[in-house]
Amino acid sequence: MSLLVVGSVAFDTIETPYGQAEEILGGAATYFSVTASYFTPVRIVAVVGEDFGAEQRRVFENHGIDTQGLERAKGKTFRWRGEYRGNMDEAKTLETQLNVFQTFTPKIPPAYLDSRFLFLANIDPSLQFHVRKQINGPRLTGCDTMNFWINGKLPELKKTLAAVDALVINEGEARMLSGTENLPRAAAAIHKLGPRTVVIKRGEHGAVLFQEGLIFFAPAFPLEQVHDPTGAGDTFAGGFMGYLAREGDLSERSLRRALVYGSVMASFAVEEFGLSRLLRVKPQEIEERFRHFKAMTHFDV
Amino acid sequence: MSLLVVGSVAFDTIETPYGQAEEILGGAATYFSVTASYFTPVRIVAVVGEDFGAEQRRVFENHGIDTQGLERAKGKTFRWRGEYRGNMDEAKTLETQLNVFQTFTPKIPPAYLDSRFLFLANIDPSLQFHVRKQINGPRLTGCDTMNFWINGKLPELKKTLAAVDALVINEGEARMLSGTENLPRAAAAIHKLGPRTVVIKRGEHGAVLFQEGLIFFAPAFPLEQVHDPTGAGDTFAGGFMGYLAREGDLSERSLRRALVYGSVMASFAVEEFGLSRLLRVKPQEIEERFRHFKAMTHFDV
Repeated sequence: MSLLVVGSVAFDTIETPYGQAEEILGGAATYFSVTASYFTPVRIVAVVGEDFGAEQRRVFENHGIDTQGLERAKGKTFRWRGEYRGNMDEAKTLETQLNVFQTFTPKIPPAYLDSRFLFLANIDPSLQFHVRKQINGPRLTGCDTMNFWINGKLPELKKTLAAVDALVINEGEARMLSGTENLPRAAAAIHKLGPRTVVIKRGEHGAVLFQEGLIFFAPAFPLEQVHDPTGAGDTFAGGFMGYLAREGDLSERSLRRALVYGSVMASFAVEEFGLSRLLRVKPQEIEERFRHFKAMTHFDV
Repeated sequence: MSLLVVGSVAFDTIETPYGQAEEILGGAATYFSVTASYFTPVRIVAVVGEDFGAEQRRVFENHGIDTQGLERAKGKTFRWRGEYRGNMDEAKTLETQLNVFQTFTPKIPPAYLDSRFLFLANIDPSLQFHVRKQINGPRLTGCDTMNFWINGKLPELKKTLAAVDALVINEGEARMLSGTENLPRAAAAIHKLGPRTVVIKRGEHGAVLFQEGLIFFAPAFPLEQVHDPTGAGDTFAGGFMGYLAREGDLSERSLRRALVYGSVMASFAVEEFGLSRLLRVKPQEIEERFRHFKAMTHFDV
């Protein structure tokens, strides 16, 4: 089924203990859409600048992503510069240039209005709400957010949360949003804000899904080399939502598998800088790693 | 099969956000042996002081633990005072009184020398080695250690590690011991020091077992209230080793189940202060929680 993502497209400059990269294609909507494209047809709404050329557009088109909603505005594309140190569990932002993203108002092409699955990547919660209201009764709406909005736009964020089905959020931000350190209680507090499904991303510790009567854990794939964690969370969300959209099935069985596919895809993302590994992952590799997760988690009862 | 544990018995004074307790029975060998007693006959070698009375000894005896090796020495029992704050992921030690533990030399009763399973809880690695050498070819020897010995007695610790089969260690200490942040590589480095099986305890993130050709994850049970994390790691080890000793089976199937039993038992330990919950857990509750772990981790492939 059709999956629409709204979020950022960026040029990232990244330094990690394993190297660096200058102005490579990134942004939440980019990681999300490329990843989800391995599962289902994807549509993107985002804004880019005049420095976004045919080469970048081709990245999306080569993955069959519908770029009608990729607006080209005057000015430069959003830029992020950051570094990772030590165990790379957190990015240190060195510079953010919002550029065309500063005045971004998502414009939904009429052909997108029937999208059955919707993901509101981390942008201003007022814009997330604005997008959600335009789509005609999606089967599942997911969203992400971050500390900046939790601290700065909590009323707007709460309005958005009341209008979505699933929140896919980092562990630290789940704690911040709920005001509680304990994860099951944080999830319970978030359920009360609206989302029936709460997916908490725990970086190298994997992810956990909370829904009434269901708690399900997926570990992170144990890689010997993590080269660049940038986009891992958005990739995770792309795998999770992409799988659900492909199946069109929101059963418990499907949610469990979706969480594992999210973790599988995130494990590819971090193997190389930027999108490189994701752009050439093979469906067979995805399935192999999915089965590997079973070997790492199942036991006889 | 018989399981022998060597380690500390202590009186703990603990403060957490949920309350406090004064001079309650604790220590690694205590948590380990009480836990393992739910699975298999347990023998303990430890030292206590003159303030250790009939009431404390009864705790062990009520669980069928063989206390022949529980030496009573002149002076006071080992005392630890610590507190937990925030998400309680780390204890802050406020005071340590070694007392009779300072001059502890484990004395193994002759009846213990045929122990088939051996656990060397966190004590001076020279003493761990000394104990290991006295036991006649155990089927499995596990050990734990801590930053204090990694920093202060590394050559002795390496000698011990070369003589054990399984290391059960905290995540931070695995990184310190191996000198690498990456967990699979940390485990590989530890394998080279001797232990064929490396179990890394990750607190609220569960545990992971590494063996050649096998990586297996168990989450931590998601409790809405953690009252006191004291002894969780030793309880984990008690469940892990206790299950293996009961089964007398070191197959992959058994190791997976043992890791889950470790996590199950640790989840009971932290529900209340000190040993309280562990002392009255029912075999049926253990089995119920074990099955609950399946529900939290299994998915259809």
